[in-house]
Amino acid sequence: MRQIHFLSKIEKGLFPVLVACLVTPNLQAQQHDFLSAKESDPIKMGWMQGFPTPKEKVLSVADGSFFSFPGLRYSVVHMREFLPTVNVSRGPDKPAPFTYELDPKIDALEFLPWGENKTMTWEQSLWKNYTDGILILHKGKIVYERYFGALTEKNVHAVMSLTKSFTGTLAAILVAEGRLDPNKLVSFYVPELKKSAFGDATVRQVMDMTTALKYSEDYADPKAELWDFSAAGNPFPKPKGYKGPVGYYAYLETVKKQGKHGEAFGYKTVNSDALGWIISKVTGKSVAQLLSENIWSKIGMEEDAYYQVDALGVPFAGGGLSAGLRDLGRFGQLILDMGKWHGKQIIPMAAVADIEKGGSKEAFAKSGHSGLKGWSYRDMWWITENADSAFAARGVHGQTIYIDPKAEMVLVRLASHPVAANSANDPYSLPAYQAVANYLMRKEK
Amino acid sequence: MRQIHFLSKIEKGLFPVLVACLVTPNLQAQQHDFLSAKESDPIKMGWMQGFPTPKEKVLSVADGSFFSFPGLRYSVVHMREFLPTVNVSRGPDKPAPFTYELDPKIDALEFLPWGENKTMTWEQSLWKNYTDGILILHKGKIVYERYFGALTEKNVHAVMSLTKSFTGTLAAILVAEGRLDPNKLVSFYVPELKKSAFGDATVRQVMDMTTALKYSEDYADPKAELWDFSAAGNPFPKPKGYKGPVGYYAYLETVKKQGKHGEAFGYKTVNSDALGWIISKVTGKSVAQLLSENIWSKIGMEEDAYYQVDALGVPFAGGGLSAGLRDLGRFGQLILDMGKWHGKQIIPMAAVADIEKGGSKEAFAKSGHSGLKGWSYRDMWWITENADSAFAARGVHGQTIYIDPKAEMVLVRLASHPVAANSANDPYSLPAYQAVANYLMRKEK
Repeated sequence: MRQIHFLSKIEKGLFPVLVACLVTPNLQAQQHDFLSAKESDPIKMGWMQGFPTPKEKVLSVADGSFFSFPGLRYSVVHMREFLPTVNVSRGPDKPAPFTYELDPKIDALEFLPWGENKTMTWEQSLWKNYTDGILILHKGKIVYERYFGALTEKNVHAVMSLTKSFTGTLAAILVAEGRLDPNKLVSFYVPELKKSAFGDATVRQVMDMTTALKYSEDYADPKAELWDFSAAGNPFPKPKGYKGPVGYYAYLETVKKQGKHGEAFGYKTVNSDALGWIISKVTGKSVAQLLSENIWSKIGMEEDAYYQVDALGVPFAGGGLSAGLRDLGRFGQLILDMGKWHGKQIIPMAAVADIEKGGSKEAFAKSGHSGLKGWSYRDMWWITENADSAFAARGVHGQTIYIDPKAEMVLVRLASHPVAANSANDPYSLPAYQAVANYLMRKEK
Repeated sequence: MRQIHFLSKIEKGLFPVLVACLVTPNLQAQQHDFLSAKESDPIKMGWMQGFPTPKEKVLSVADGSFFSFPGLRYSVVHMREFLPTVNVSRGPDKPAPFTYELDPKIDALEFLPWGENKTMTWEQSLWKNYTDGILILHKGKIVYERYFGALTEKNVHAVMSLTKSFTGTLAAILVAEGRLDPNKLVSFYVPELKKSAFGDATVRQVMDMTTALKYSEDYADPKAELWDFSAAGNPFPKPKGYKGPVGYYAYLETVKKQGKHGEAFGYKTVNSDALGWIISKVTGKSVAQLLSENIWSKIGMEEDAYYQVDALGVPFAGGGLSAGLRDLGRFGQLILDMGKWHGKQIIPMAAVADIEKGGSKEAFAKSGHSGLKGWSYRDMWWITENADSAFAARGVHGQTIYIDPKAEMVLVRLASHPVAANSANDPYSLPAYQAVANYLMRKEK
């Protein structure tokens, strides 16, 4: 019983559902004696297996165990079995196969983890980071692909806040199509938000999370607004006496302003849900429907994806998506290829160019993301601003789509790290990605 | 406000989730001045539409509105957005297209509804029965296909107790494969059920619902056991102080015996869930996984299906399936063709033969199904025992797969009739099916 998730007490409260989707990326990892990746293998642990499942192997939403480590290692690939969801259809087409050029040398690549003085191999980093699935595409071909834990090539994995980059991309598409004006105020598109903090923010400020919101995602603070947001979005019947807002939208209307918009980056999930609302107002469609129409049905996906929904059926644009590893790779490749898929322009090149140009480094620096020095944030993507012009979609517990244009590399990692905040795994993953990118570039010469 | 669902008061109780799946087929339809099919069109009514959905258009699990008429006309095609579910994958293959030979003459076919003296046309019957989707296959070709209400060719519809016929078919497959002995006692396969009413019943008695169970599905009785079953299976966190069993399996262990097994047919949903448990014990797989492996991934399905699950992730084998109209047609054709699909034997011919041979008419007659005189029940299929040897899968609110071997016809109807019990729509549907069958046979001559 030595592994206790550091959030478990809070997660076992009334509204655990959204917890893992909301953790701020700069939340400091705490040292704990967690079970290792091998020890916590969800299949070996036997979660939810057997007819019936033995009591001690049951994961439950009611007591929060479904999203506490190590149980979450099972739940990340079974979200729909715990929660209401809405489908993101891949449509009737046959999946587009990948070409494989697997490179067995990648496993032995060495890198120096941040803050350490001893190198680690790529393969070791996968275990260190509780990887569930890892895919590396180089020039569109699969050079590396592995599955661990409960993930297989046939199922989907919760991508947590990586969802935000899909929301941002959908918005960037609308901007590129001239249907959404990023300079307009949010209240122009969503009059319901006029009195909230979002009312006098521009769409661009929401897209880049430079809004000034009285909204804390600090898990250590029981009065943090995230708990109210979580309670509002919880899809289960509300407890007796609940008087708060019901659903994401209703919660967004209550968000208060704190400071001045446009000055500093502040990573707050509610921006993504506000952007989801804006998108739906502009198009008359849910983000789930739009994601299917614009992307999921267009690039040979092999599995339908899905979103968690609130009690009103609204998809959780800030963190509710589950998708397959290779399908996330297809999406990454679409972005790397400036919106083209197999030679055909699927989404506007201008939308991808807008992401790639990055956001304000000054605004980002003010956010105190000490681990991600010099980065920026644009259209709900994380921009490394490094020599390779790499950028990423990121979600807690280690989810990422990492795109390195210079190396022509797309890397997807799905994971179930015991610590939600990516600051716990970044030291063992970001330099590892760079090592693979460098190797692939060297190989070309 | 003239339309009040006759079950709505009960459905608005604590555990509305399973209600509509459990209604006994001999529950008498009550006369009410319901909105007509056109008046209650769920798209026109605007359920769950808009960003946000206006309050009066919200359907909710919490207050039972999601499964009260007329709201249920929306919910039948959106179950997963309200409830946790598990996927039934169609696999990676491209859908198998149908050949169309649409016959516009079918709409004008006339038939005499039971107990009436004025004929009705086929097309009128569709509106009368609140049809959401109707498909007729003749010799494997589509001769008729229409969508109404919230159903489209792209989404899935709750099939309610029609689910039972899938459970029965999976069991019949195992019997045909020699993996399940129908003459063995249930307790041989599920020791946990030894002390329950199922303990000394044979698997065959469960398959044909001739078990003698102290279990009432009488909605008029607030003490009926169905409420306990429903409470146990409800996937949402249990209310404070709940002391009952959690999950379908745990409930089944509490079912008491009343009478002697094997004498009379008694339509009780718990038999299907007991059979689902037996199937999972034999195979080590859930019914969802088995349905995917044995059928859904084998016959060119175009949409994944899904099951509602309980809080332990167990699929509701008695009524939890949602599936697409044409996919149900493919399944019906597979059965009509004795387990062959496009010339290939997919499920054992013996399994289908066992269904088609029917059950005990004597046992059935004792059940008091006054509307279905002379029928029998076998492997969780309804056998008409008519001149065409027709048999059917049936679910409340009007769901059916109706197979007429003599006419080489498979008919699928999905519906959202305001009255759950099929006795409300049988007078306007069963003679209509026969009229189409007769027409198709005449046409051949």
